[in-house]
Amino acid sequence: MPLKDYLRERQALIEKALNGYLPRASAKPATIHKAMRYSLFAGGKRLRPILTLAAAEACGGDPENALPAACAVECIHTYSLIHDDLPCMDDDDLRRGRPTSHKVYGEGIAVLSGDALLTIAFEILAQAEPTSRYKVPALITELASASGSRWLIAGQVLDLENEGKKVTGETLKFIHRAKTAALLTSSIRLGAMSANATEAKLQNLTDFGQSLGLAFQVIDDILDVTQTTEKLGKTAGKDVAATKATYPAIFGLERSRQEAHRLTEAAHEALKPFGANGAMLREIADYLLAREY
Amino acid sequence: MPLKDYLRERQALIEKALNGYLPRASAKPATIHKAMRYSLFAGGKRLRPILTLAAAEACGGDPENALPAACAVECIHTYSLIHDDLPCMDDDDLRRGRPTSHKVYGEGIAVLSGDALLTIAFEILAQAEPTSRYKVPALITELASASGSRWLIAGQVLDLENEGKKVTGETLKFIHRAKTAALLTSSIRLGAMSANATEAKLQNLTDFGQSLGLAFQVIDDILDVTQTTEKLGKTAGKDVAATKATYPAIFGLERSRQEAHRLTEAAHEALKPFGANGAMLREIADYLLAREY
Repeated sequence: MPLKDYLRERQALIEKALNGYLPRASAKPATIHKAMRYSLFAGGKRLRPILTLAAAEACGGDPENALPAACAVECIHTYSLIHDDLPCMDDDDLRRGRPTSHKVYGEGIAVLSGDALLTIAFEILAQAEPTSRYKVPALITELASASGSRWLIAGQVLDLENEGKKVTGETLKFIHRAKTAALLTSSIRLGAMSANATEAKLQNLTDFGQSLGLAFQVIDDILDVTQTTEKLGKTAGKDVAATKATYPAIFGLERSRQEAHRLTEAAHEALKPFGANGAMLREIADYLLAREY
Repeated sequence: MPLKDYLRERQALIEKALNGYLPRASAKPATIHKAMRYSLFAGGKRLRPILTLAAAEACGGDPENALPAACAVECIHTYSLIHDDLPCMDDDDLRRGRPTSHKVYGEGIAVLSGDALLTIAFEILAQAEPTSRYKVPALITELASASGSRWLIAGQVLDLENEGKKVTGETLKFIHRAKTAALLTSSIRLGAMSANATEAKLQNLTDFGQSLGLAFQVIDDILDVTQTTEKLGKTAGKDVAATKATYPAIFGLERSRQEAHRLTEAAHEALKPFGANGAMLREIADYLLAREY
């Protein structure tokens, strides 16, 4: 199947599952459920949950079994965007080409809808089918750790603390690992675990996820510098305007492009043991690198 | 054991367990871990986790087995206080006699430390020992539901939406059920589940929790009207000043007191089947009612 069709099919599968897991927009109190759905169904690429399903397949599993994990990951990702966009954080008015949650619903409801998506992520993940190697508590621990105070949240903390400051390359790399690579890697690991992956395969996919996650963030940094607001659907040049630490700001555009390429090579390398089963993960990695940056 | 000693002993047990579950204050990034600990170790009464342990005992279980559930509940409670105190919510400067999180760490870190406590709650709960009747996913579902968009968060949403408006008695009762009784009931249910309670006992304790939770909130409303700032450790009269819906504002002080008493009677009634095993839960209910209101 061509990648475009694969991505579209998977997006549809994930949207349908998310729609089933979320309370209806009319469920009381309607405001919070509308706000949760506004951000969750905002035309996101569903990159993370697609990786979850593709990782399950790479390990010979049925992607359907990985749907709870995939949807949980997308809820976490969406909550983190809502909170990151708040005035007391990155203060962003635009996300995926639409006004951010707090612009539409006000700050109070935006905070609460992020909280609600974070909470429901674990409610959804608790519905996963255990496998012989991985019980549900192991999945919960995996997701909570990747999205907790040492990873996803740690990245945002360092981002906040270093705004307007010159950061070292080491700090920037830590921020990228924490803010982006950790949840992306966890998305992939959760897919592998849902497919009862061997320890060796889980490790290979962890390596893959880390390289891919860093590559993805380096490219996002590059795109923020090189693309227009219209094309991105968010305020371009914003990171630079806020003197925020980005890869090109520290290492320059050329070295950033080389690093993105090197990381993608490493990701490819980690997929070798999967042979044909890893084809889709490989294509997705190529697709991410092939964004014009 | 006299209630005071029992409460002190249980508080110490819970504080020790929480201290072990939380990353150290020096763990990187230190800011977030200091902020999490600032709010979690702020001299709270530990009412909810104590109820979790007492409910486990009432069902003949070992309170040690209920510690993960107890600590998870306290993390949820603390996160909800941090977010409720934010300027975009209740805008409170004082909590438990100390400056609120956003006053000390700024709004961004306060939001993130709430997020982190919410996330770690599920990481802690995933460490619970399953029983023959209740597996860990059932515990996760229980806590996520009580703290999600239909209960705990729903209460805060309605509170926000109705600020400055006249609400009906029915709406006020729903807010109380959602904001206070749901998590309190869930604390008790999680204790019972950790002790492998029969379905009948779980139902009795659910009834107990709902009555107790509502009584607790009605009394809190009364105290807010009748007590001084110094005695409460938070800004007294604040609810009235903000024309916020409270029990005395709608039903008057006298009827509020009667309602608190009636609810406590209902709570006692629900404990009857537990005989001597329910003694501590009964004493705690009395203690809550015996606050001078």
